[in-house]
This record gives sequence, structure tokens and C-alpha cells, in this order.
Amino acid sequence: MTAEIVSVGTELLLGQTVDTNAAELGRKLAALGIVHRRRQTVGDNLERAADAIREALGRADTVFTIGGLGPTQDDLTRDAVALALGVSLVHDPEIEAHLRAMFERRRIPWTDSQTRQAQRPEGSQPVANPNGTAPGLICERDGKRVIALPGPPNEFGPMVEGPVGEYLAALTGGMALHSRVVRVCGMGESMVERTIRDLVDGENPTVAPYAKLGEVHLRVSTMAPDADSAASVLQPVVATIRERLGKHVYGFDDQPLESAVIGLLRVRKQTLAVAESMTGGGLGGRLTSVEGSSAAFVGGVIAYQAQVKEQLLGVSRELLAAHGTVSEACAVAMAEGARVRFETDFALGITGNAGPTVDAAGTRVGTVFIALASSEGTQVVEHEFTGQRGAVRSKAAQGALTMLWFALNR
Amino acid sequence: MTAEIVSVGTELLLGQTVDTNAAELGRKLAALGIVHRRRQTVGDNLERAADAIREALGRADTVFTIGGLGPTQDDLTRDAVALALGVSLVHDPEIEAHLRAMFERRRIPWTDSQTRQAQRPEGSQPVANPNGTAPGLICERDGKRVIALPGPPNEFGPMVEGPVGEYLAALTGGMALHSRVVRVCGMGESMVERTIRDLVDGENPTVAPYAKLGEVHLRVSTMAPDADSAASVLQPVVATIRERLGKHVYGFDDQPLESAVIGLLRVRKQTLAVAESMTGGGLGGRLTSVEGSSAAFVGGVIAYQAQVKEQLLGVSRELLAAHGTVSEACAVAMAEGARVRFETDFALGITGNAGPTVDAAGTRVGTVFIALASSEGTQVVEHEFTGQRGAVRSKAAQGALTMLWFALNR
Repeated sequence: MTAEIVSVGTELLLGQTVDTNAAELGRKLAALGIVHRRRQTVGDNLERAADAIREALGRADTVFTIGGLGPTQDDLTRDAVALALGVSLVHDPEIEAHLRAMFERRRIPWTDSQTRQAQRPEGSQPVANPNGTAPGLICERDGKRVIALPGPPNEFGPMVEGPVGEYLAALTGGMALHSRVVRVCGMGESMVERTIRDLVDGENPTVAPYAKLGEVHLRVSTMAPDADSAASVLQPVVATIRERLGKHVYGFDDQPLESAVIGLLRVRKQTLAVAESMTGGGLGGRLTSVEGSSAAFVGGVIAYQAQVKEQLLGVSRELLAAHGTVSEACAVAMAEGARVRFETDFALGITGNAGPTVDAAGTRVGTVFIALASSEGTQVVEHEFTGQRGAVRSKAAQGALTMLWFALNR
Repeated sequence: MTAEIVSVGTELLLGQTVDTNAAELGRKLAALGIVHRRRQTVGDNLERAADAIREALGRADTVFTIGGLGPTQDDLTRDAVALALGVSLVHDPEIEAHLRAMFERRRIPWTDSQTRQAQRPEGSQPVANPNGTAPGLICERDGKRVIALPGPPNEFGPMVEGPVGEYLAALTGGMALHSRVVRVCGMGESMVERTIRDLVDGENPTVAPYAKLGEVHLRVSTMAPDADSAASVLQPVVATIRERLGKHVYGFDDQPLESAVIGLLRVRKQTLAVAESMTGGGLGGRLTSVEGSSAAFVGGVIAYQAQVKEQLLGVSRELLAAHGTVSEACAVAMAEGARVRFETDFALGITGNAGPTVDAAGTRVGTVFIALASSEGTQVVEHEFTGQRGAVRSKAAQGALTMLWFALNR
């Protein structure tokens, strides 16, 4: 099975949008063992989009389009697919009824431009889009097929992972790339690579390290006809990695660190609160992105201005005067204050300078203190993070989660 | 002048690398007013890369290749360019001398594979690459040209901004695309488009709408020799958009909604606190991503579990028992509780069900109540957001910022 991708959107050519969708689809095709040799990107132009689809159909048996399915006048992928396949567009009353019901539920007035989204090339099948309005389309013709996918990533991703992925898997039904990702925290990429160099040099499975913000991911991959035979190749190597890296391995595949931490707290029936200054809620935001986090995460205080640290967390005025807000003592008092107020087993306190400039007390950008309070006392660590405001804030939240992960694994 | 891009690299097709270089070059071409209608991506394969370059040369007068200039065997863009142009590869002793000197300086042993990088298509000019080994190449032939650029972003970027950018500017001689982005909140894409349909249908400037999460961006663009003449075309249309959409226009260009809100609070010398349940700190995280936000944003309570709403925000037990935590009454009490505790002019309260399932009280996923407390009383709005957990949480934070934006503009 061979595939090509045609991404449609003037914003892609102008570089206003980076085509992450095409990369995601590329990974999906690789995982299914579908050969993918070429990708084209065209603007919102009917003839050029139709040409690109026609050329791709000349070389491959499956062509994906990405984008251009919305309600506006420059959304013309439906028209281009019909033109390339030489069929007409038909109006689908079922799609329109579905859209009208959705608009009514959301109390958004119906406009006639929406009916564009109820059109589809003759002989095609709509693909449900629970996260947006325009359905995807699967258009089979003469043993080939065009699969039209919506552009917004929050609609595109679930459609590729869900119904379209299942449709493709049914078509390929054979060898596919199987991977496991081993997720590592608290250790830099070169140290990780040095520890498992012999595995990275191996051929089956392949082991590839990727440096992420404050963590390292190891992708272990093999081609196999099914999950069981894949597991027999992957599992021994994953086990060796785990043995060598110990508790630095916090999880697998798509599980982020916050989810591993919440999972462990739930197993231990323990609770957590946060006291955030420079991260401003970002750590709480990550923790509560985990489904079911309310069983372990109680809440927190965003202590952005100094008086909040005093009033809501009980950090004493004397301490603030003596040490300043960006200090080891303040981080400790914030964590301990949160642990008392929220009556939790653990509490994390973060204070630091995210920039853009040296603060009034002369603290450098990137200096961050993270404290963890528990029944065993309070530990505190000073970090010097590099990067701009956004990176420093993200690394601070990651540092706090890493600290808690190691405490839970002691 | 017309251009196409051919990105070369199997890692791009497999989705292991996202093609940010092509987007960056797209922005550069747009800025120089060079028409760019199509982009292709091929793997590390000589015939397919040469085919793609040949096809692109058939349609455009300038073709850029990205990647495949390194020393390894799968770096074959030099060969593909020569093949497409019908010329031979010649060995350039000057490039080799330069590379050997560089290796000596860095004390890296010379390997024979490095000599590949000293080859260039006959009649081409090398472009210096101070950040890597492989030079870029400019190959002019029959009034057209192929420009080969290295793939590593830290080599690619400086070359595009530096010598290649200057070469292109000399060719185009002045005209460039100038754009302004008008950012719109609280109005859907179709409604925005209906309100300014005549402008979207206009030709100079062009007006293109882009739907973003909970907002719409309008890109207004024109070709002009300089910023002043561009402004004389853009400004009247930007003013008309502003007049028609009124306070739905919250900002321009790169300014996000949280920055517009913080900016207005600072001008008015007013303060803000938040009380977040289902967003878990995400709203505070967005507000504090703005540099200088501490002048207006005081802090907040992450009231994730019910007892935090009671203990830290003073939401009464009776209210929670009568209405539940996901209710209009609870959102109001959270906002009012935060406003009193943080002694701010405004406070936002958010409670809702982000999913994945209907909650114990039977509230559907996506039901969110947002309240805004101020000296003029408290308003509250019920939303039904679609999408998965992450999308619902982001839309809730966006809804809260939109509500405050309109209150500040009343």
C-alpha cells in the first residue's frame, strides 16, 4: 500500500502555520507500514489543489488531504477532491441535520455558509468529527482512495487515531511498526545514551533517544505482524533499559510525568497541594490535565504577589523581609504553608525569577527554588534554568514533578 | 518572481522531524513578495528528489531545496540538483581547503566522506555556512535557479536571513508583503466573515480569516515597496474592520488575549484574582505568561476539591449541597470569595466538567460556568464546550478572559 499527502492551506505556504499534522500522519503511516514517498503542500486554490491530488493519485493508491474542509469560501478541498476524481459534489441531508442539531445545542445561530460542510463528493463516506463541524471524507474510486481530513489539530488528531486509523489498519492487516516509548526523568540525554549505548547501536529493535523539556524519551521499535510477536522483541530490551536506568524511568508511551505522579499518589492513597509563585498555576494546570486527578490533587494557591504568600500561605513577614520572595526559605515556607492549609500528605512550593530581567533583589533570570513538604520534613532544591520566560516556567514545573516522583519512589 | 520548495529527508516523511525550515522560508518569501505556490517533500532518494526539483523548475523560476547536503551517503541533494539541471558534479578544491582548515581548528579528524561536501553542480556558487560544514549552493541556469540550503535549523536560519536573503532581495528589488493581524474574540468565524465579507472579497489588501481556539485572526496583507506605503493601504481596512467588529477586536499581530487583558488592567490600575476549579491553574498560568503581569495579577486559589472551595473561598456548605460544585451559584460564590480574599477589583471563577465522563451530579462533559465579580456586582455565564478534556479546559480559560475583556471595555 502506498500513500501520499496533500496539505492544503495558504497559511502553510506563507509559513504562518507549521504543518505538524503532516508529520503526525507520517508517523501513523510508518506505524502501519504504509509506504509514504511524497508530500505536497498547496495554497487555497481549486485548480492547484486538484492538480496535486490528481498527480498524487497517479503515483500512490491512497491520497490524504489535510485542511480546507471548513465553512468559508477558501475551504475548497471538497471541491478539489471531486474535481480530481471526476465526480460531482452532492448535498448530504444527514450531515446538514447533524450540523444543525449541533449548532442548536451550542446556541450558535445557523448561517447558510455552513451548508458547504454538508456537501461531499458523490460516492464518498463522511467520517464523524466529534471535535468540530466539518466531517472527514473517505472517497473510494477505481481501487484507489482519497481521504480528506480536517486541518485543526484537535479535530485532525482524534480522527487519525480513531476512525481513519481503524479504516487503514483494516486495509493493511499485516506487518506494522510497533514501538514502545520509555520515558526518563532526572537524567540528561548524554548520560542516558552513555548508559544504554550498546542498545542504541542495536538493529532489532532500534532504540532512539529524543531529548524533551526536562526529560528524555527512548523509542524502542520493531517491525512485526502483530502485537504479540512485537512484544517478544521489544519487552527484553525495555526491561534492560528499566534495569539500567532504575527509577529514572517514570512511564511508557504517552504517559506524561504528571500522570505518573498522580497515578502513584492514587495507588498510595495520598494527596497533594501546590503553592505556585512564578509558575502562576501552570503546575496545577499540568496536574489537573490528568483524568481522575481529583482523587489525589486537592488544590493550591497561586501566590503571585508577595502578600498572597503571607495571607494565604502564612509565610511570615519577617521571613520575606530577611530572605526575599525568591529564596530557599520562602519556597520551604510556601510548601509547608500549603501542606497545613490543604491538609495533604505532600505539598510543592515554587518560587523563582522567570524573567525577562534580573529582579529587584538582584536574582538572576532562571533562578528557581522548589520545595517539597511531607510528613518526613521538607526538602528544597535550587535550580538555574536556561532559556526564555516560557522555558524557565515549564522547566520549573517539570523540576517540581521530578522531585515528587523521586520522593514517591524512595 | 515565483518559487517552489523541495524539502528532502526521509525523517520528514516519517514525521520524526517537523518541517519548520519550510515554514521559515515561506515567511521569508512572503516578506520579499516572492510568489510561492507549492511545496514538495521527498525522502532521501536520488530519482524522486531529482523528479521533484525538475517538476518544480517547470512551474517556477526559483527552486529551493532544504536538507541532504551533509557528508553521509543518504545526503544526495547535490547529486539530485545536478541531475535535474543536466550538469555534472565538479570537485571544488577551495571548498575542500576550507573544510580541512575548519576540521583542523576544531581538532576533528578528517574522513574521506567529507569530500562529498566539496562537490557542487558545474556552474554553481557555494554559499558560506559559518554554522556547519556543508556550504549552500546557488545554481543558475537558463534564467532559472536552484538554491540548495542545509537542513539543520541553526545552519539554515542564518543562511536564509543572511547571504541567501540578500541574494533574493537583490533579485526582487524592493517590493515585499506587509501584513497586520487583527485579533478577534467572542465571535465565531462565520459571523466575522459575514460582517466583513466585502473586505474578504477585496483584492488589495487581501483579508484572510483564520479560526483559532475561541478566537478568530484576520490577516490583512498588501505588497508594497516600504512600510509607509503599506500602511496607507492596510490602515483604512484595519480601521474599517475595527469599526465593524467593535470591541470584539482585542489586539493586533502577536498579542494574545491574556496580554490584552493584563495591559488594560495595568492602564486602569486595577487588579485581578482567579478561583479555578476545572482549569486547575491553567487560567493563572496563561495570565502569568505575560511579562509584567505581577502589576495586575495578584494570585488565585486552585479549588479543585470541594472542601477547598469552602475553606479557602468561603463557598458555603449549604450552597454546595443545594446546587453542587458545577453550578451557576458555585461559580458566583467562587468569584466573589476570591475577590474578597485577594482584595482585587476583579475576580474570575471557573467551575465545570472537563470530562471524560458525566459527573456524579449528572452534569454533561463540556458544561462550564464562568463568573466575573467586580465592584458592579457579579455576572455569570453557562457554556457548553465541545471537544476533549484538554480542549474544554482551554476553551474555559479563553471564555473567562473574553468575559473580562468585554467587562473592561464596557
